[in-house]
Amino acid sequence: MTFINKLSAAWTANDSLLCVGLDPDLDKLPVQFRNDPQGIYHFCREIIDATADLACSFKPQIAYFAALSAEDQLQRICDYVREHYPHIPLIMDAKRGDIGATARQYAREAYDRYGADAVTVNPYMGFDSVEPYMEWSERGVIILCRTSNAGGSDLQFLDVGGKPLYQHVAQLVAQKWNSNGQCALVVGATFPEELAQVRAIVGDMPLLVPGIGAQGGDIAATVKSGRTTNGTGMMINSSRAILYAAQQPGEDFASAARRVAEDTRDAINQYR
Amino acid sequence: MTFINKLSAAWTANDSLLCVGLDPDLDKLPVQFRNDPQGIYHFCREIIDATADLACSFKPQIAYFAALSAEDQLQRICDYVREHYPHIPLIMDAKRGDIGATARQYAREAYDRYGADAVTVNPYMGFDSVEPYMEWSERGVIILCRTSNAGGSDLQFLDVGGKPLYQHVAQLVAQKWNSNGQCALVVGATFPEELAQVRAIVGDMPLLVPGIGAQGGDIAATVKSGRTTNGTGMMINSSRAILYAAQQPGEDFASAARRVAEDTRDAINQYR
Repeated sequence: MTFINKLSAAWTANDSLLCVGLDPDLDKLPVQFRNDPQGIYHFCREIIDATADLACSFKPQIAYFAALSAEDQLQRICDYVREHYPHIPLIMDAKRGDIGATARQYAREAYDRYGADAVTVNPYMGFDSVEPYMEWSERGVIILCRTSNAGGSDLQFLDVGGKPLYQHVAQLVAQKWNSNGQCALVVGATFPEELAQVRAIVGDMPLLVPGIGAQGGDIAATVKSGRTTNGTGMMINSSRAILYAAQQPGEDFASAARRVAEDTRDAINQYR
Repeated sequence: MTFINKLSAAWTANDSLLCVGLDPDLDKLPVQFRNDPQGIYHFCREIIDATADLACSFKPQIAYFAALSAEDQLQRICDYVREHYPHIPLIMDAKRGDIGATARQYAREAYDRYGADAVTVNPYMGFDSVEPYMEWSERGVIILCRTSNAGGSDLQFLDVGGKPLYQHVAQLVAQKWNSNGQCALVVGATFPEELAQVRAIVGDMPLLVPGIGAQGGDIAATVKSGRTTNGTGMMINSSRAILYAAQQPGEDFASAARRVAEDTRDAINQYR
């Protein structure tokens, strides 16, 4: 099954556009995990079990694992999702960007090593830095378009022939790069009007939307701006607000995560 | 010692602008390394020993290690360079690009985990995706500007206010982002006239220049276009042409690598 079909099925099965981001920061984990050599894996597994019926995708952020030499735990997390929740797409947030032969190595890392359904990539080096991923024709390629950080405007908002660069990227992907139907775009929730402009350019292409939750994006505006005509089309990511939902030491972190995930899913669904 | 000072010292000590790229492709390694579980490490170690007096830097490409779950071998390679050739800068070619807290994890990966002197990063997400690296004030941040691949033009050559995007990136870095003096730029050798334009914008800022050797860039034009007034300012990278210099099965790969590295260094020095 292709990434896009798997994602569509998950939107329906869980009635959810929520993507649960797995950004395990050791300093923020409940204390029982901090001295456990497999603590990141054990923590993420509980988060996954607590939210799997509420999510349309899981998205590990590879940087958090790389900083801790925890590739083995990332592997176990990916294996766990694929074994226990094979219907939930697994997105490797890696934002890779390199040319030909090297891009192919990154594709092998995401798709073959970790078994991800999709991987995030950076468009700065152009189509030949994206094309190698398409050899894996069932997998997804999620290309950075308009990012949710303040500095995103430094390049993405530059004027290119009367429109900002991020819209040019959206057009390139929609009109040229997506010939296999494998592409999606990253568009931040912090700029709902820009999300609407991207949606107008790309038709029904899925959008991965970070920036709600801890980053402060407005859910109503995000959903209204980014949904497709059938009320789907988005993976709206929340990471820290779910992972670190417990407010008190000793509070059950998994129940707290589930409660925030459910509230977020329902808040999104109000506006679909 | 800062990255820039270490690099300047290596230019002088080895009378070389050659950067030796470590892109170990298992299919291309001499047969004795292919079934050795530490074969990549052993191969790279011999390349390093054979070229360390000819190089101004070593540049492992992390994708080749990630695809093979060979982070342990990359660690051993980095440790080996730092122990045996502490005066040669170690550049982690990772082309990372992510925001604040996540960028900080990638900086930890490159600088703390692997002990790299510098890391390559992607500018698409703007200054707040670059700034976290600058907390490591002695290390270098090498920002993609104009890449050597054909598709590099898809974005980098777009017209922004009368000049191509890559020149805008060069100006941003030179005039704003480089306040700590830690920055360098990636500019491909395949477009010498563009290399000259970047040099004119950035003054004496170091340039990492891929694209000679297997990628076909012209050495004379590259050096004349990219050198600073004192005949330095560049790390001119060659990877495959050195690593896989041996032409016959059974030929000593390390001697062949040394011969090509020496010829390349000397060819570069002819035009400095």
